[in-house]
Amino acid sequence: MAGDKVIKAGVIGATGYTGAELVRILSAHPNVRLAALTTQSYAGMPFWEVYPHLYRHVDMVCRELDLAYLADKCDVVFTALPHGHSMPVAAEVHRRGKRLVDLGADFRFKDVAVYEKWYKVDHSEPGLNDQAVYGLPEIHREEIKGARIAANPGCYPTSVILGLAPLLKNRLADTGSIIIDSKSGVSGAGRNLSLTTHYCEVNESIRAYNVGKHRHTPEIEQELSALAGESLAVSFTPHLTPMNRGILSTIYARLKGSFSPEEITGLYREFYAGSPFVRVLPPGVLPATKSVCGSNHCDIGLVVDDRTGRVVVLSAIDNLIKGASGQAVQNMNIMFGLPEETGLERPGIYP
Amino acid sequence: MAGDKVIKAGVIGATGYTGAELVRILSAHPNVRLAALTTQSYAGMPFWEVYPHLYRHVDMVCRELDLAYLADKCDVVFTALPHGHSMPVAAEVHRRGKRLVDLGADFRFKDVAVYEKWYKVDHSEPGLNDQAVYGLPEIHREEIKGARIAANPGCYPTSVILGLAPLLKNRLADTGSIIIDSKSGVSGAGRNLSLTTHYCEVNESIRAYNVGKHRHTPEIEQELSALAGESLAVSFTPHLTPMNRGILSTIYARLKGSFSPEEITGLYREFYAGSPFVRVLPPGVLPATKSVCGSNHCDIGLVVDDRTGRVVVLSAIDNLIKGASGQAVQNMNIMFGLPEETGLERPGIYP
Amino acid sequence: MAGDKVIKAGVIGATGYTGAELVRILSAHPNVRLAALTTQSYAGMPFWEVYPHLYRHVDMVCRELDLAYLADKCDVVFTALPHGHSMPVAAEVHRRGKRLVDLGADFRFKDVAVYEKWYKVDHSEPGLNDQAVYGLPEIHREEIKGARIAANPGCYPTSVILGLAPLLKNRLADTGSIIIDSKSGVSGAGRNLSLTTHYCEVNESIRAYNVGKHRHTPEIEQELSALAGESLAVSFTPHLTPMNRGILSTIYARLKGSFSPEEITGLYREFYAGSPFVRVLPPGVLPATKSVCGSNHCDIGLVVDDRTGRVVVLSAIDNLIKGASGQAVQNMNIMFGLPEETGLERPGIYP
Amino acid sequence: MAGDKVIKAGVIGATGYTGAELVRILSAHPNVRLAALTTQSYAGMPFWEVYPHLYRHVDMVCRELDLAYLADKCDVVFTALPHGHSMPVAAEVHRRGKRLVDLGADFRFKDVAVYEKWYKVDHSEPGLNDQAVYGLPEIHREEIKGARIAANPGCYPTSVILGLAPLLKNRLADTGSIIIDSKSGVSGAGRNLSLTTHYCEVNESIRAYNVGKHRHTPEIEQELSALAGESLAVSFTPHLTPMNRGILSTIYARLKGSFSPEEITGLYREFYAGSPFVRVLPPGVLPATKSVCGSNHCDIGLVVDDRTGRVVVLSAIDNLIKGASGQAVQNMNIMFGLPEETGLERPGIYP
Repeated sequence: MAGDKVIKAGVIGATGYTGAELVRILSAHPNVRLAALTTQSYAGMPFWEVYPHLYRHVDMVCRELDLAYLADKCDVVFTALPHGHSMPVAAEVHRRGKRLVDLGADFRFKDVAVYEKWYKVDHSEPGLNDQAVYGLPEIHREEIKGARIAANPGCYPTSVILGLAPLLKNRLADTGSIIIDSKSGVSGAGRNLSLTTHYCEVNESIRAYNVGKHRHTPEIEQELSALAGESLAVSFTPHLTPMNRGILSTIYARLKGSFSPEEITGLYREFYAGSPFVRVLPPGVLPATKSVCGSNHCDIGLVVDDRTGRVVVLSAIDNLIKGASGQAVQNMNIMFGLPEETGLERPGIYP
Repeated sequence: MAGDKVIKAGVIGATGYTGAELVRILSAHPNVRLAALTTQSYAGMPFWEVYPHLYRHVDMVCRELDLAYLADKCDVVFTALPHGHSMPVAAEVHRRGKRLVDLGADFRFKDVAVYEKWYKVDHSEPGLNDQAVYGLPEIHREEIKGARIAANPGCYPTSVILGLAPLLKNRLADTGSIIIDSKSGVSGAGRNLSLTTHYCEVNESIRAYNVGKHRHTPEIEQELSALAGESLAVSFTPHLTPMNRGILSTIYARLKGSFSPEEITGLYREFYAGSPFVRVLPPGVLPATKSVCGSNHCDIGLVVDDRTGRVVVLSAIDNLIKGASGQAVQNMNIMFGLPEETGLERPGIYP
Repeated sequence: MAGDKVIKAGVIGATGYTGAELVRILSAHPNVRLAALTTQSYAGMPFWEVYPHLYRHVDMVCRELDLAYLADKCDVVFTALPHGHSMPVAAEVHRRGKRLVDLGADFRFKDVAVYEKWYKVDHSEPGLNDQAVYGLPEIHREEIKGARIAANPGCYPTSVILGLAPLLKNRLADTGSIIIDSKSGVSGAGRNLSLTTHYCEVNESIRAYNVGKHRHTPEIEQELSALAGESLAVSFTPHLTPMNRGILSTIYARLKGSFSPEEITGLYREFYAGSPFVRVLPPGVLPATKSVCGSNHCDIGLVVDDRTGRVVVLSAIDNLIKGASGQAVQNMNIMFGLPEETGLERPGIYP
Repeated sequence: MAGDKVIKAGVIGATGYTGAELVRILSAHPNVRLAALTTQSYAGMPFWEVYPHLYRHVDMVCRELDLAYLADKCDVVFTALPHGHSMPVAAEVHRRGKRLVDLGADFRFKDVAVYEKWYKVDHSEPGLNDQAVYGLPEIHREEIKGARIAANPGCYPTSVILGLAPLLKNRLADTGSIIIDSKSGVSGAGRNLSLTTHYCEVNESIRAYNVGKHRHTPEIEQELSALAGESLAVSFTPHLTPMNRGILSTIYARLKGSFSPEEITGLYREFYAGSPFVRVLPPGVLPATKSVCGSNHCDIGLVVDDRTGRVVVLSAIDNLIKGASGQAVQNMNIMFGLPEETGLERPGIYP
């Protein structure tokens, strides 16, 4: 199929969890050759010393970032950086005619002012921002095909938007009624050190954080509003859950009318007919994060609650894969004309 | 204070997790003497062989249930049994003029028909049911004082009702807008064997279950309706979380009007002024289940979301203590005229 | 390389954890076609309902065991059954000229009497037992090539034998001094229900079990004795560790003479030069089970303790892969003339 | 009993895990009044903001260390500090005639040179070191009674020395054959931030560290040599285990002669007859860390392996209680003439 096409890929910020997951996936991708891994903290160190699971799989040494070198050597650059750091990279990569998949937030917002307000950073590349595509393939596949910059969605937004898209596109839900209660594993907080991710503080505990003010809120609202055809606001509460990987979003919305589980399920399946990674579960089956762990799947379960007139959507992803690095590779595949599943076909591991 | 009052206590169903937790708390209670521990599965075995943490603390041997013997020997009987099994016990205990704290669901419903519909069991003691008091001390303290039968609340309802009571009592929330998203540790499922509680199935995973149909729903609605002064229905979604103990309920409601976090917090503190186990956290502080683990506390955090006009209430308990056995002892204390905190004063353990 | 060779494979006992892991690996193996999955408990049910991570990956329905049918349809049969159940399967498979990889203990012992003593079962197929090869490729690769029956090693023995082989083969250790302290994740206990694997009993606890009498002891001793060229006995203590996957064996032996870490490491690397799945770590680097999770690797770290004259070998595997199903596929690859790594090349996942 | 004796206690280093555990235990101790809590990082902050489980239990504010003030205000000072920091405190506390319980390593060694060699710090108070008593009550109870400085043992040494004392005192074991394989929960590493304690790095993994060179080794050897009446060296391997609390030490030694499990158990029970916190389990029963979690117990299980002539001792403690803060309070009780169990009577919590 994909023949012998070889894409030279670079990863900036390769030693965070999403960076390392990118390296793992790319290193086994049949059409990719890793060209450079850069990192602030471990320059000069063999990558496997930072991530020993890749011993004998990845022989590269971590490099300091040299943008010109990187953009020259690579066909595609992945940025796995804190927000605010991808804009200069994008400029250089674009100047040299290469492609960028940004796993950060810098290019996710149609309206630069929204980005600037929530992230408290000036956007230095509004022109490039106009060209960037929101890289959720199940919603924006066609635009991604021609994109030079794919803004890979946040982990929570991926689970939420996929969970609500068919409902909103079909105008089935009261747009003022949406409540999103999300539970994430700890790897979503990255490998940086903080009391928040200290084993003993997280283990045997669950808690909410950033209630009503998490930065993924405007990203969710932008995409849901576009799907619904009207501006909407949601309640979004993220929770830190004692597990490494996984996001489960429990989403509540009031239905406009009465629908059977089968009808709703049918609409979801139709919506995702061409999307290999979304698995709409049969009525009565609910997803668990464990069932998608290690895979690029998004599993969706649907419950219609006749007592309250609400639908409850359960949406599960692996936050590091469909919520970050797997989706980034899916975007790359689409941008380079490869089959969407290339390098991402494997099922997750269980238990 | 409590002087040298000695209460002889029996536990029926002593070898489940809530039973064992009762035994642990009662064995260290200054006014209690354990009189009998009964169990279906381990009769004849020293209790410590079933629960080795109590080796040298509890020297009793598990007995088969002999109701007449038990009711005769004890001043108070605790039943930690599956629903449907406490009704005959209540009859016998009542006949002999002793008191009962039932940790099951048999006496929680004012309306026997609601119980029968949700639990699919006939209620054999409707007369006793009329005399039973819903044993949530923070709401029904006065009634509990004179009660012969205290129906100890379910674990989820405890966290939810305490989380919403001040709001509804003060008529601050739209009663049709309440959504409850609860996360429970695995001990809430008991010590019985099922694939649901197999280590490898639970660990590293989160999932919802019984969405829209969990049996704690009507219990929550009964108490919230009474507090609100009108009949209401809620969306309630329980989740199984990979940890031993703890429930966090994230509760959403639309506010009738605009309130500052300080105002809401003030109302909550006023409401719980005489309730030593409810800790209303200062604005900006959110509870974690870890902070109540091992204690009888309910920690409540409050967030007002001006963007959506909703309040988000976070309510955390230890499901085995405030959600079950600690609350049962709190009820016993009140029924016997002891200070409410007796035997329950210790803080939780951390981490 | 392997060209278009297609091996038809059947799995008996497909719904236990090792069975399901076999199905996962085989379903992605480029030279395998799954021909039948049998199970006692779930016959008639789609496999994905039992293991939802394989939804849309494995479309087969679980079958009851029909040995004649299976042996007829398959080129190779994998048995993932409790001990005692593989002997009749082996007879039938052998009669029809097909190959067997047995993940149980029935064919692991050269001396049938040792099997019968430790497993308390009569061996009904001593003739076939004579033909079976102990399927640890790093030690018995040449014999496996021609084998009709490969007796896949136990999980603990795999980690232990690989950890000690170079030492004993080179006569560096006092054979009377070997102490093996192993720590296993819970999936090693299988998916069956028991209090031992109840989440709340395992979580937040570590304990030893079967001290001095675990059935993997004679298996370890058989292989170590062969390597050492003399009969030896070991102390072996398995521990249940609160994690899903992984075995770490910490192995102590007194050195005959004084060696630097570099010398010992050199000997190990030489010994495993042709073995792609064993990664001998550089001196000073110690393995963690996390670094092999999801892969077929065995990571080995070596510490020479001059104070006591002992070497400490640390050996880490994923118990379900190199300790069971991955190794079974490795054996199949060798038996069918495929490159040893086929279908097993992927690194593990982290974190 | 203890009557109305009130001991004013100060804790230096109150905001680490052992410090906070001290505060928790002391705050509920009937004869203690907390006089001051000092901390480097959180001075000026209410203690409960650092440890919210103690909200409404401990109302004190964290102070910067003012040694003169502290020594003046307190009858006893507890130091929960990194090694090297307790020596000046000891000098001041001693000068003012107060007592010190040091949870660090500064006063644990009879021979200052051993301390200086392993900890790479000069000992500034060798005179006070001569007066310090190794605070393991089950071995040194009489000396502790008159001590001004109790050097609270390390967590690993507590589990190991209690596990081996009866064996060595009775000259039953070959002193050259001792191998100690210990598994610790993560709280033993403290609350400081490091990749080592990042949730995702620890969770779902077990690994050894500091093999053959952990600083608890000479402490273990000092005490075991004294018990055995001869100088001995041990192999000691600590492991980091994915759980919050608990140490399990698996200890191997060759027996001098043949003993039944009952004989060995009998000797242990005799040895610990007057020690309320050591529970020698019946033959055939093995300890789990979960059974001591939250208590000051040390549970000991014994296996005689006739095949190898070795005994395997399993010793379990809660590292933060019997391995640190509970034992410190036990030492205080003894130093002040209180019953040893005061404030420590409660059983652990389970599950």
